[in-house]
Amino acid sequence: MIGQRPVTFMTEKRSEINQLGEFGLIDRIASKFDARNVSSKKGIGDDAAVIDAGNDFVLLSTDMLLEGVHFDLSYVPLKHLGYKSVAVNVSDIAAMNGRPEQITVGLALSNRFSLEAVDELYEGIRAACESYNVDLVGGDTTSSASGLVISISVLGRVEKDKVVYRSGAQSHDIICVTGDLGSAYLGLQVLEREKEVFLTNPDMQPDIEKYEYMVGRQLKPEARMDVVHELKELGITPTSMIDISDGLASELLHLAKSSGKGIKIFEDKIPIDSQAFETAIEFKIDPVTAALNGGEDYELLFTIRQADFEKLKNHPDIHFIGHIHDQPAQNVMVTKQETIVPLKAQGWNHFA
Amino acid sequence: MIGQRPVTFMTEKRSEINQLGEFGLIDRIASKFDARNVSSKKGIGDDAAVIDAGNDFVLLSTDMLLEGVHFDLSYVPLKHLGYKSVAVNVSDIAAMNGRPEQITVGLALSNRFSLEAVDELYEGIRAACESYNVDLVGGDTTSSASGLVISISVLGRVEKDKVVYRSGAQSHDIICVTGDLGSAYLGLQVLEREKEVFLTNPDMQPDIEKYEYMVGRQLKPEARMDVVHELKELGITPTSMIDISDGLASELLHLAKSSGKGIKIFEDKIPIDSQAFETAIEFKIDPVTAALNGGEDYELLFTIRQADFEKLKNHPDIHFIGHIHDQPAQNVMVTKQETIVPLKAQGWNHFA
Repeated sequence: MIGQRPVTFMTEKRSEINQLGEFGLIDRIASKFDARNVSSKKGIGDDAAVIDAGNDFVLLSTDMLLEGVHFDLSYVPLKHLGYKSVAVNVSDIAAMNGRPEQITVGLALSNRFSLEAVDELYEGIRAACESYNVDLVGGDTTSSASGLVISISVLGRVEKDKVVYRSGAQSHDIICVTGDLGSAYLGLQVLEREKEVFLTNPDMQPDIEKYEYMVGRQLKPEARMDVVHELKELGITPTSMIDISDGLASELLHLAKSSGKGIKIFEDKIPIDSQAFETAIEFKIDPVTAALNGGEDYELLFTIRQADFEKLKNHPDIHFIGHIHDQPAQNVMVTKQETIVPLKAQGWNHFA
Repeated sequence: MIGQRPVTFMTEKRSEINQLGEFGLIDRIASKFDARNVSSKKGIGDDAAVIDAGNDFVLLSTDMLLEGVHFDLSYVPLKHLGYKSVAVNVSDIAAMNGRPEQITVGLALSNRFSLEAVDELYEGIRAACESYNVDLVGGDTTSSASGLVISISVLGRVEKDKVVYRSGAQSHDIICVTGDLGSAYLGLQVLEREKEVFLTNPDMQPDIEKYEYMVGRQLKPEARMDVVHELKELGITPTSMIDISDGLASELLHLAKSSGKGIKIFEDKIPIDSQAFETAIEFKIDPVTAALNGGEDYELLFTIRQADFEKLKNHPDIHFIGHIHDQPAQNVMVTKQETIVPLKAQGWNHFA
């Protein structure tokens, strides 16, 4: 190709990426790559890759956050951004039932950023390393022509017989979710509205106090490592697990498809915080839609054997929303009116 | 911090990042992080992090490439870019005397990129995975408001007694470099000049044939895994090693500083390709300066015990350019005129 002038992004045939969507694109890429190394136990298609490291499995996951796509620095403090960028990676390790141990941080900065700003970002990264017991072991720092880019990779570890995939759900297993859903999405709506108000009238005081819980869920999500540790103490290994980053509906469909099973959930079992419920109404958003499709909750969605239900049934922060059945692609929700509707994912399509 | 409007990159005190430079910034960050996990054997400050995985060490490194900073798509074919982005990561594993096994690819794309363009990029990634025997095990694909961003993390493996750090050089060790130096930098000069010619007169045919070697070194560098394997076969474990990404001088100073030793090299021993030499003269660049400060050669710089010299002395692609001595910070080059000059790194300062 040397010697020609390759303006290679203008090839003859042009198909748009958004025809495929993010998951279609991932499938297309994955189909072209085979595993060569025996240590590669699981590649693309779960929350983290699984590498055979001898006694244990090592887990590897990576996430990239771009200014203007994933965050807006007009209302996201850099310290929170640093914390969140670690937490979302740790959440991928939690979803494999693993413990995070190391991260690398790739950072692209424009000259708009001062050293003090970089310190603030790393202060958040350091706080997250402390709360998740993770070591920062490397990275790459470079300049950016425009916005801030943060790319974090995380290494985790799990005993070989304790790793949990998306694909392990069995018929009659109970579907569980942690925490509550939709709050992070509603927090984002609040922040976006406040930004509009501020742009229109910079003297107005922000009216944010009553939304504090949701704004906190958006700005400073926590990976549910606490739940991973509790399940271990209770002697429960989920049969399948995934973290809720794109919305409950999207993740339920991933679990169902990976496991080759069907899913039935009950609308009235979906955990929604009462403040979030009120805020959704205020914003004219159906609270259940926010919970199903909102995204960025970073709660865990997992399935357990019925035999394990007794041990978990009184847990204050784990909710039982349905069960697995053996009819693939029959994924439904029983509404509060007891009608049965198909479960559809809107999720986030980054290329829409 | 919630409830305030944090325009956090405008803090009261503002210090510029380029006051510190890239390496100063890395040192500043590293000083604020301690290791918590016993598995974290080596963190920031070498080519890759070293993780104890039981029988072996696992190696982890990450690199981020941004359009407009690290590459110019007006003359870099996407396939070559895909290949190179893997090769530069593999080179970091080579520099630890390890074998690469897995990569993850984070990709941010604007809607300027068609599916065919993405396929072409992954075709290059696939080719590199094949030539380095690496598995693509995960990634993150997202949209970008502006240019293309590629962030690759690589996992490698090395026997515990074979890992090589930057810090192991001992007095009287012989300093070795593979291949030739400065060619990739000169290839970049050729490509930049051709771009200018093209912008001035789009009908002119590119005059690139006689620069093919250098342009190839710039567009499609290879990680020197061949040398890692040969050293193993010869029973040689280098005492220290680093890959040459920022220029020989910069890497020599890293080795010297990490090892707490001094370096003496001889100008006439620095390997420079004859075409590269002629091209440097044509471009009015001192060929030795190109070799010392050019960057992106991705050759290996390493030190060996004198006892190992016999086994390597006839190797056609390994050059002996000097030796280690026990006076830290006394890093010098003996010129062709037999004067002694201090060794200084210009390297690449991404924040200059």
